[in-house]
Amino acid sequence: MSQAEFTISDSKVICYFDTSFTQISRIVPPENLIVVTDENIDGFYGHLFLPFRKIVIAPGENNKNRAGADFIIDRLIEMEADRSTLVLGVGGGVVTDLTGYAASVYKRGIRLAFAPTSVLAMVDAAIGGKNGLNTGFLKNIIGTTYQPEFILFDYNFLTTLPAVEWESGFAEIIKHACIRDMQMFETLERLSLHDYRQDASLLASLVEENVKLKMQIVLEDAYDRDLRLLLNFGHTIGHAVENLHAIPHGHAISIGMVAACNLSEKSGYLHFEEAQRVVRLLERYHLPVDLETEPARVFEILKSDKKRDGGFMNFIMLQGIGNGMIVPVEISFLEENISAVL
Amino acid sequence: MSQAEFTISDSKVICYFDTSFTQISRIVPPENLIVVTDENIDGFYGHLFLPFRKIVIAPGENNKNRAGADFIIDRLIEMEADRSTLVLGVGGGVVTDLTGYAASVYKRGIRLAFAPTSVLAMVDAAIGGKNGLNTGFLKNIIGTTYQPEFILFDYNFLTTLPAVEWESGFAEIIKHACIRDMQMFETLERLSLHDYRQDASLLASLVEENVKLKMQIVLEDAYDRDLRLLLNFGHTIGHAVENLHAIPHGHAISIGMVAACNLSEKSGYLHFEEAQRVVRLLERYHLPVDLETEPARVFEILKSDKKRDGGFMNFIMLQGIGNGMIVPVEISFLEENISAVL
Repeated sequence: MSQAEFTISDSKVICYFDTSFTQISRIVPPENLIVVTDENIDGFYGHLFLPFRKIVIAPGENNKNRAGADFIIDRLIEMEADRSTLVLGVGGGVVTDLTGYAASVYKRGIRLAFAPTSVLAMVDAAIGGKNGLNTGFLKNIIGTTYQPEFILFDYNFLTTLPAVEWESGFAEIIKHACIRDMQMFETLERLSLHDYRQDASLLASLVEENVKLKMQIVLEDAYDRDLRLLLNFGHTIGHAVENLHAIPHGHAISIGMVAACNLSEKSGYLHFEEAQRVVRLLERYHLPVDLETEPARVFEILKSDKKRDGGFMNFIMLQGIGNGMIVPVEISFLEENISAVL
Repeated sequence: MSQAEFTISDSKVICYFDTSFTQISRIVPPENLIVVTDENIDGFYGHLFLPFRKIVIAPGENNKNRAGADFIIDRLIEMEADRSTLVLGVGGGVVTDLTGYAASVYKRGIRLAFAPTSVLAMVDAAIGGKNGLNTGFLKNIIGTTYQPEFILFDYNFLTTLPAVEWESGFAEIIKHACIRDMQMFETLERLSLHDYRQDASLLASLVEENVKLKMQIVLEDAYDRDLRLLLNFGHTIGHAVENLHAIPHGHAISIGMVAACNLSEKSGYLHFEEAQRVVRLLERYHLPVDLETEPARVFEILKSDKKRDGGFMNFIMLQGIGNGMIVPVEISFLEENISAVL
């Protein structure tokens, strides 16, 4: 068990790394706590939630929408949650996003914390305070920025995590390595998914490194509004692909990172060998690197992406591995090249 | 035309006082603007909105809910609004609240401004960045805090404002005077609703004074979290009464202020003569000062009020006119006294 504290624009966020969920009653008085989780997590870990009030939502990305958030808000109203209440999202990214949004708008914001139960949520979704709801084809088109008071990392939750979810989590980890951390990239090249699933201490230190890397970007972003855009590496095309094909988030992001590497190469920022090295690392972690798709339809969805500003879109490219960079790309350039890079 | 600039926790808000709506194209490029208004305002002033894209919502407090906000968000999606888009809420408090909420969560926040068209919106709803949505009996139970870039005050909009809406606006003005400004209270005693409706310059300076008073409270609140609670004077009981009887907001607040004065007197903070002076001023501005109601049901609604924290509720009392003060009141004390003060 180790602990780290981050201050993000006036909000203090405490990370309890490698901490058993059963410690939660030492952090928050049980009567102030409402657990929000999904049916899957509740099925496996319901016994842990017995001391607390609980809201159980339907699982899956399909429920990460306004109806899903409204369901939580309506339960908070019924439970007469007030500003002394702490809402604890226990689950993957769908749970943390829905819980974060609901907590941020109910009574204009009540207390919030997370206990992420997937690799993806631990290294990404639960970190940074951004939440998002989907509508139709549009990912995260609605959302707020709202920090949890604390995040509790209990790696025991990962024992029931399906293989595909492990892969999804590593897609974000590889993303972090690509944009900011050559050393992490090399460590990932040396080890394998099997190693991390077998050795809890390897995993614990990887998660901590990734949390700190993302927190650092979020913190620096207070001074440099654009820095956080780096985290969109692989996500612009990835989200569009995810909408079109209903493939797992991490798979879509993997495809998106390959496309972004191709675009970086095409624009002269990345060597062919480096792009190949990224592709090989993705394959090493069982992530797909190509896909039968319809580039024209991918482009249509891209056009309505929330990161668009006028005729340009900020696109994240790599100027070498470990060095992400924001490049404003004309929408028309994307349209011309989408077939070639995808 | 005069201009004032306020900085509220990093957000700059410009007030264009006494400025014709037709100046709007000088402030924002027309192609970046989406006007959000209601059917009533659009009926009277639709010709002003011709150069702009427009979202027209159904009027009335009944629409200040999640469905109302979702309607605006869905139109923003259809119009492919992006972060260069400025959403301008033109209307009363319902329009400014719905527009503020929608703009704050669409793409995690796009540009926002207001042109308030009622006295209430000019001196209160459009000021301070708080918005709120109702669900069932609960007022403003959902909301965000999100500042507009600017607020444009065109008093010509008031020529079509119904009498009851003038009265509602003056309820908030009298509230401001009660909690912070004895001099404004005396001016209001000397003049009348008729005077303010006849003399645009009297009205203009009253609106400016009220905007500055509320902005000052919002600004100071950054250092003293409780200060802003003063603005709830008359609102705790007022909101409960409003829910129960579907009377106009200002009428309910007037009843609430009388109840709060009675409670202040009962608690020894306010003299009987001062309470009577507040009652007389409310009557002078055509506001109701008593009501046939069911105190037990009012209390039930109070209990679920969002300002409750555990067994206490922060209640705003007057320690003399012009001097509001926050008093944590036990819920049980309220329950015992609700019949006597209402």
